Amino acid sequence: MKTSNIYLHDIPLEEARRRFHEAIRKAYPDDILGEELVSLQEAAGRITSRPIWAQLSSPHYHAAAMDGFAIQAHDTRGASDKAPVVLERIQYVDTGDPMPSWSDAVVPVELAETLDSTSFHDSHKIRVRLSLPPWKNVRPMGEDMVATQLVLPANHAIRPVDLGAAAGSGHHEVWVTRKPRVAIIPTGTELVPVGTRAEAGQIIEYNSLVLAAQVESWGGIAVRFSIVEDRLEKIQEKAAEAALSHDLVLINAGSSAGSEDYTAAVVSNLGTLLVHGIAVRPGHPVILGILDRDNSEVENLPRQVPVVGIPGYPVSAALTGEIFIEPLLARWTGRKPCRSPVVDAVLTRKVHSSPGDDEYIRVTAGKVGKRIIAAPLSRGAGVISSLVRADGIVHIPAGVQGLQAGDPVKVELYCNPEDLERTLVVLGSHDLTIDLIAQELALQGFKLSSGNLGSLGGLIALRRGEAHLAGSHLLDPESGEYNLSYIRKYMPDMPVVVVNLVTRQQGLIVQPGNPENIQSLDDLVKPGITYINRQRGAGTRVLLDYHLEQLGIQSERIDGYAQEEYTHLTVAAAIASSRADCGLGIRAAADALNLDFVPLYQERYDLVIPRIHYDSELMQPVLKLLETPEFQKSVTAMPGYGVEHMGEVIAEVD
Amino acid sequence: MKTSNIYLHDIPLEEARRRFHEAIRKAYPDDILGEELVSLQEAAGRITSRPIWAQLSSPHYHAAAMDGFAIQAHDTRGASDKAPVVLERIQYVDTGDPMPSWSDAVVPVELAETLDSTSFHDSHKIRVRLSLPPWKNVRPMGEDMVATQLVLPANHAIRPVDLGAAAGSGHHEVWVTRKPRVAIIPTGTELVPVGTRAEAGQIIEYNSLVLAAQVESWGGIAVRFSIVEDRLEKIQEKAAEAALSHDLVLINAGSSAGSEDYTAAVVSNLGTLLVHGIAVRPGHPVILGILDRDNSEVENLPRQVPVVGIPGYPVSAALTGEIFIEPLLARWTGRKPCRSPVVDAVLTRKVHSSPGDDEYIRVTAGKVGKRIIAAPLSRGAGVISSLVRADGIVHIPAGVQGLQAGDPVKVELYCNPEDLERTLVVLGSHDLTIDLIAQELALQGFKLSSGNLGSLGGLIALRRGEAHLAGSHLLDPESGEYNLSYIRKYMPDMPVVVVNLVTRQQGLIVQPGNPENIQSLDDLVKPGITYINRQRGAGTRVLLDYHLEQLGIQSERIDGYAQEEYTHLTVAAAIASSRADCGLGIRAAADALNLDFVPLYQERYDLVIPRIHYDSELMQPVLKLLETPEFQKSVTAMPGYGVEHMGEVIAEVD
Repeated sequence: MKTSNIYLHDIPLEEARRRFHEAIRKAYPDDILGEELVSLQEAAGRITSRPIWAQLSSPHYHAAAMDGFAIQAHDTRGASDKAPVVLERIQYVDTGDPMPSWSDAVVPVELAETLDSTSFHDSHKIRVRLSLPPWKNVRPMGEDMVATQLVLPANHAIRPVDLGAAAGSGHHEVWVTRKPRVAIIPTGTELVPVGTRAEAGQIIEYNSLVLAAQVESWGGIAVRFSIVEDRLEKIQEKAAEAALSHDLVLINAGSSAGSEDYTAAVVSNLGTLLVHGIAVRPGHPVILGILDRDNSEVENLPRQVPVVGIPGYPVSAALTGEIFIEPLLARWTGRKPCRSPVVDAVLTRKVHSSPGDDEYIRVTAGKVGKRIIAAPLSRGAGVISSLVRADGIVHIPAGVQGLQAGDPVKVELYCNPEDLERTLVVLGSHDLTIDLIAQELALQGFKLSSGNLGSLGGLIALRRGEAHLAGSHLLDPESGEYNLSYIRKYMPDMPVVVVNLVTRQQGLIVQPGNPENIQSLDDLVKPGITYINRQRGAGTRVLLDYHLEQLGIQSERIDGYAQEEYTHLTVAAAIASSRADCGLGIRAAADALNLDFVPLYQERYDLVIPRIHYDSELMQPVLKLLETPEFQKSVTAMPGYGVEHMGEVIAEVD
Repeated sequence: MKTSNIYLHDIPLEEARRRFHEAIRKAYPDDILGEELVSLQEAAGRITSRPIWAQLSSPHYHAAAMDGFAIQAHDTRGASDKAPVVLERIQYVDTGDPMPSWSDAVVPVELAETLDSTSFHDSHKIRVRLSLPPWKNVRPMGEDMVATQLVLPANHAIRPVDLGAAAGSGHHEVWVTRKPRVAIIPTGTELVPVGTRAEAGQIIEYNSLVLAAQVESWGGIAVRFSIVEDRLEKIQEKAAEAALSHDLVLINAGSSAGSEDYTAAVVSNLGTLLVHGIAVRPGHPVILGILDRDNSEVENLPRQVPVVGIPGYPVSAALTGEIFIEPLLARWTGRKPCRSPVVDAVLTRKVHSSPGDDEYIRVTAGKVGKRIIAAPLSRGAGVISSLVRADGIVHIPAGVQGLQAGDPVKVELYCNPEDLERTLVVLGSHDLTIDLIAQELALQGFKLSSGNLGSLGGLIALRRGEAHLAGSHLLDPESGEYNLSYIRKYMPDMPVVVVNLVTRQQGLIVQPGNPENIQSLDDLVKPGITYINRQRGAGTRVLLDYHLEQLGIQSERIDGYAQEEYTHLTVAAAIASSRADCGLGIRAAADALNLDFVPLYQERYDLVIPRIHYDSELMQPVLKLLETPEFQKSVTAMPGYGVEHMGEVIAEVD
């Protein structure tokens, strides 16, 4: 038993940063990794390591600023419409031509009358009817830039126009900071490379892909190593090899303190373990250290190579990149650290937070009315879809014990603040048609941000001003009508428009071939049958409970009734993986996972839209889409769907 | 005479956009250029051309979420501290291991007492003191993503984390939009390549460098052609060649209607000239057209290749890129068009605008007090330094006749709005030490934005709230004191702190070897001597006028007294290029351009800082810098400078 090793010693984030930074500064006292000379063609996006001073003035000679005749200005003294002068000391010049040394002004062609030729080029005598001051229509040398002047400071990210200024001031190469070479070593016997067909227990290794793309986007050169199995000596060999020719080594996974976690030992054996465990969630099992390099003599590089042991869960891995690797690469390259735009938002639901930890909560965000709404995403460290769906991140500093629904928060955005204006927030019941709408809106430059709260949750979110619209299919047991009585009950005082989206088939999703021969809700109480349920407030749950009551079936008799899933697809997934034998849901979900389906009911699924949003510009693309035959066709292509009433206003509730 | 061709027919910007867009849509009705399949390793930053649906659930099996023992949850029913249960149907699992098919929960190691072995791995019997619900400490299949679910929509710019989601859902390749291939053909007999020593009349060809970097930053592949001389047949040959293998052809310069402007003819000969001249300043001589391609059969590409004739002046060229090329590449690649952040600002000075044109004015911007200040930069189309210095751009739509100082404007920023908070606006007199401060601040992540208004202009700008500090060296003829009397006169009611920056030598900058033997101001009236002056309100001008009066010299007697330059360096440049024989200025400017210098006076140069800014955080790095010995040393390294009083508070004026 290796219990001694099971708990990490989490230290505060700031302390971890300080230790790491100080150790690295011993190797790089100026913070900068190094510099190199590159041609202007390769310089875009790089960071200047030295100021660029003009070597050449621009223009580097007195240049004609118009097509016309170079003259001496004082030859035109006193000239006017009534008293023209005739000039013979002239020379035709095109725009950009150097001025003859005796000249100091240009008469534009349209103001000169040629007297001895019909061609400007051949003319030696012109009449001029105005007096020109010296340097009129001339770009004097140095008008733009004077030699020795500062063109670009050091630590400047080179933009396209900067290349022009550097070239125009006489440079063809510039000194820029060197790109850090970052080795990424994936470790884990259970890992298989991307593109492999993974068996149960095998994990597709994609953290190195994400880390490499992060490193490149932060100005580094990423080198991905092959997967190394969980053996101390193998990992150590690769880490030592990586340290020889890289500026930073990342070892992915094995950073915790389990029986197969070797990163801490590798770092200790090859150098100095500075930090093992940081009070940050997600991602606390981070290792920071220094590897000793042997070939410092040869390459003229410091002996110390920083190393980061990165947790294996993808959300933790990505966050570790943002917290430790981005700032280091920014310092090394002289780039300004990424500063995300920060907006004030309102949190939609409570989040817990351990007061000892710095916590990072990913959220979706959208502007609903005048407020920006931040909805926390799943906090599981393994849920990479939370990274994909996140519009931003909320930092809860150590010392704070969680946040309440409705609390104001600062959101660091991954998108532009302007994008929030083009984001449609859709909460409530989940339907595959919502995904199709999302897809179509994306093509038009809009974003649909959706959250599955169930039908009732959607209505409550609308009432709270947290969404632009909600999908709902709530059957009223008394009237047999959908949605309207719930709207009156849960959203009094809020005028809404109810628009039909689809009708769709609900039924029992069962194993392929329906081996238990499940035909109706009566079969749910048969011995050995396990059910998988939807959460309370979901329309499908309301439908189930309504029919159970009609049939006089007590829910306690159903094995698995307490197991709740939040979407049709996850219900289907539970059945596909044999976690359950059946569940109520839509046909499309059954078909998606090659399951069988026992149709039972046809139901109406509506969009509930507050009047204030119904009339807004943001809603127009959605309402238009519902009337588009192509879109309707793509919906009916999904099994069990009807679009006879799509886009119809079912009711206006004031 | 080719007068018929001299004037372009400028059409409104919107009309030009419409014609171009419609012509291109004939070739690309869906707007998208095409798509290609790339590996995930190459996919970062590319745009999805199809939605990505999950091929695999994630996790793709039920996975242990902790190290511990897989069990059946119902075996723990009723277990508690007082009533532990002993389990023999157990299997040790590490985090991520697949759950045995009979199991549905995990007892974490720290909650299990092994009864038959000291090693968890070998244990077959454990004691458990709590009851677990089914699926506790298990990541069920599909928890993160369910197969068939939408992972990423089409038209999505792929971020690092998206690669993880695509890989985790079973993909190793993705369909992305093809990168447009853009040919850039520089034309002009006067052009020489970057890296060549340019003679008078030769222009370093750097527009293609800027355009190529723009194209690459907008998601295209840029191909730079060699410089083509100004001959119709040569340009036509290259354009036809480029059209064969590129999606877009850019011909740089020759787009106007002068005698050597062939682009319009080339486009007409090879296809269709849609637009020649657009009512946009700068940059109106733009050509838009379509080239016909012959090999459409071979490559399965449309016959039509859009072509843009781009004006030669660098400011016009860059703006043409922003207005026409960026939106086209965005449409073709499915990328969202760049939307710059827009802020409300106050214009510092009047700008004229022709009411028929859309005008684009580049500005520097900074936040002074509560307002964002936008200071128009030089509007010359040849002044590339205005592109480099610009923090943003102000669009004056057609129909508007200019703007007044103090007018509110919308500024499209090239930087982040947050950067404005870290920008120090310095107006007033120009001194090389200000450039050194700019350089040092850049290293600390601050920006110094400077404008040369002369000493008096700086004080007036401070009074108007347009700057954080002003450099000033105004000699009071009566008291012989610097700055204070001017501050009292021009800035009444504004408390300021006056801090010394340097003392410096003023004198006459003269030709190398001082061929005219100029020794004092008396020599300025000698026959044949041309002077170059500083603008009214400049400290150096005040100094000159003071001493001229002392000496009883009338300014009308000085040839060139009316010629004004705005900086010491441009005065020196005028002398270096023989525009003038001498001018009053500082030694460093003379030395920078290898001129001779006749020292005359030692003067004090101060920083005038309103109290409100003196006490602000933004000022701290500057005040600290002035006390740094290294910085003082770098200033005294410049000839003629003294730092004995650097950083001293000279006076506090309330």
